[in-house]
Amino acid sequence: MTELHEKRIARVIENLKAMGLTQTIVSDPPTLFYLTGVRIFHPGERMLALLLRADGGHRMFVNALFGTPDAGLPVENYMDGEDAPAKLLPWLERDKPLGIDKNWPARFLLRLMELNAAPSYKDASAACDDARAVKDAAEQEAMRASSKVNDDCMAEFAQLIRPGITEKEMAEAIKGIYAAHGCSNVSFEPICGFGAHAADPHHGNDDTRLEAGQCVLIDVGGVYQDYASDMTRTFFTAEPTEEERKVYELVRQAQAAAEALVKPGVKLCDIDAAARDIITAGGYGPYFNHRLGHFIGLEDHEAGDVSAVNQNVVKPGMCFSIEPGIYLPGKFGVRIEDLVLVTETGCEVLNHFPHELTVKKI
Amino acid sequence: MTELHEKRIARVIENLKAMGLTQTIVSDPPTLFYLTGVRIFHPGERMLALLLRADGGHRMFVNALFGTPDAGLPVENYMDGEDAPAKLLPWLERDKPLGIDKNWPARFLLRLMELNAAPSYKDASAACDDARAVKDAAEQEAMRASSKVNDDCMAEFAQLIRPGITEKEMAEAIKGIYAAHGCSNVSFEPICGFGAHAADPHHGNDDTRLEAGQCVLIDVGGVYQDYASDMTRTFFTAEPTEEERKVYELVRQAQAAAEALVKPGVKLCDIDAAARDIITAGGYGPYFNHRLGHFIGLEDHEAGDVSAVNQNVVKPGMCFSIEPGIYLPGKFGVRIEDLVLVTETGCEVLNHFPHELTVKKI
Repeated sequence: MTELHEKRIARVIENLKAMGLTQTIVSDPPTLFYLTGVRIFHPGERMLALLLRADGGHRMFVNALFGTPDAGLPVENYMDGEDAPAKLLPWLERDKPLGIDKNWPARFLLRLMELNAAPSYKDASAACDDARAVKDAAEQEAMRASSKVNDDCMAEFAQLIRPGITEKEMAEAIKGIYAAHGCSNVSFEPICGFGAHAADPHHGNDDTRLEAGQCVLIDVGGVYQDYASDMTRTFFTAEPTEEERKVYELVRQAQAAAEALVKPGVKLCDIDAAARDIITAGGYGPYFNHRLGHFIGLEDHEAGDVSAVNQNVVKPGMCFSIEPGIYLPGKFGVRIEDLVLVTETGCEVLNHFPHELTVKKI
Repeated sequence: MTELHEKRIARVIENLKAMGLTQTIVSDPPTLFYLTGVRIFHPGERMLALLLRADGGHRMFVNALFGTPDAGLPVENYMDGEDAPAKLLPWLERDKPLGIDKNWPARFLLRLMELNAAPSYKDASAACDDARAVKDAAEQEAMRASSKVNDDCMAEFAQLIRPGITEKEMAEAIKGIYAAHGCSNVSFEPICGFGAHAADPHHGNDDTRLEAGQCVLIDVGGVYQDYASDMTRTFFTAEPTEEERKVYELVRQAQAAAEALVKPGVKLCDIDAAARDIITAGGYGPYFNHRLGHFIGLEDHEAGDVSAVNQNVVKPGMCFSIEPGIYLPGKFGVRIEDLVLVTETGCEVLNHFPHELTVKKI
């Protein structure tokens, strides 16, 4: 096991102890990668579990089909058809509460309960999530590099804006551009919303063809050297209407105000409020109907968000999105999104693609 | 709610009662689609739950971001930041055991346990899985249509076999061909294994370039009108060696013998044995290191398999893969896979692409 992974596991164990636990099951493939360097991204219906114990008795449980990964700790293989959760029993402290990964499929927990594996069970994912939320030096460098690629790619995406291109065609072209820039994958299916489609924050691309006058919302990210990027820009294809200009400027100001507030010690809900207050004061409060941002790293959406209900405070090394939007159903939508990385005294904005209102006449 | 969906829910409720349950939570998006026609394929970190009750008091719980789907039954929306599992409480029979979806992320179950939502919890997915395993008439037609497309596509994939093409390039071309044939997606990332890579049943495509003499294993499927196909063929790029020919013939015979055995009343483990015995008798038993097949429908891998430990008997309407293989590490691998649909008296093999040893000289 590398020193890096040892340090990360030690941090999780400290968090675990603070929760009053001495043992937990970690199953989320990205967390397993974070803690051990082992990549098993698709266990599918098969059980995958890393048992972490405060006394160092760690052990990984993997279906034999995936081989015996070099995790730097003991690995137990089991075969299809075996009672996989039962394999954990000899390695548990049977008289102590057991932490459970929040994403573990319920069937494995229900089976452990049937087997009386522990006196009680607790969602212990925060022990890992809190560790992952604070990026170490290598991760910070990776987040910078990934967003740099995203900036470069966005410049090329803007060139795709031409009459007649469909949302699906644009999304396919975007994937090709990420691949050409060395990304192993997209962070998520690119969102390309034309005109009224930009007013749906979760729009699925379709065969709509771009026409002059429609806005173009591009929300995209690529996975570069294992770390995800995520950025949104909204372009106009004709001189914007007065309302479009007003909405764009409000979103831009809200985004800038939130970014300006990010520093250690500030509450995440206050950052959300900084953006929301500006949009509300501008008269569009009800049309900004989602949280301001989400944490990001090995995955596009990691635990933690920038929302009205998150009272947690910002710490150096955290990385999250700042993405206010205004969505006018049936008309148009605007969202502007950057990633920020918290420093000791403020934050580093990882995206440098311009924020100003841009008209790409078609 | 359509009559079709009413019938499907009624079947699940019957299964539930047979398990001694009066209420269960269904959360798997494909099962929700099967039961209600509602498509929410990516709830991500947000809770998605359909409460089914034997007394008909069904209710769906969806984050407001996904809107209020037209599920033909009452829908409760909740907002980001709300305690989503707590929303279920008023609608549960609090004094009766609660069924849980096997794939529900553990955090929701753990929260219900904290809230004392029910006296006990049980994995009740079999109630839905057993219903989904037996395809109704509309689904049988869809499985036929999807595999017909897969046959047509495989003929084009065979044309991709040329010197210098990489595994990744072949996989990309395969995706394009599925799209051109009207598939909305691939059933899973296409597996293209050249030479020794064909000996790894879970091989990830890489930049290996095809050379004359390597075998080409293509394991692929497309999603056509919501239903997945799945087929494997192994081609040779030069006159096969004696061992290659022997291994291929063994796999072909094992595959045919298993297909010939499929009819209502036969145990799934006996079908697995029919193929395995032939490969073992041929001296390659240890090199066939996975189960013979898996159930398939809305998803490529559905609950149920054709394996040595599955004593369940075959019923009309079931659909599964028959895919024996022999994998010689460092040398080559052969797998042949068809889907079969069980009829009243036997089975209908859904794939008609030839099984004979094929040499595509390059």
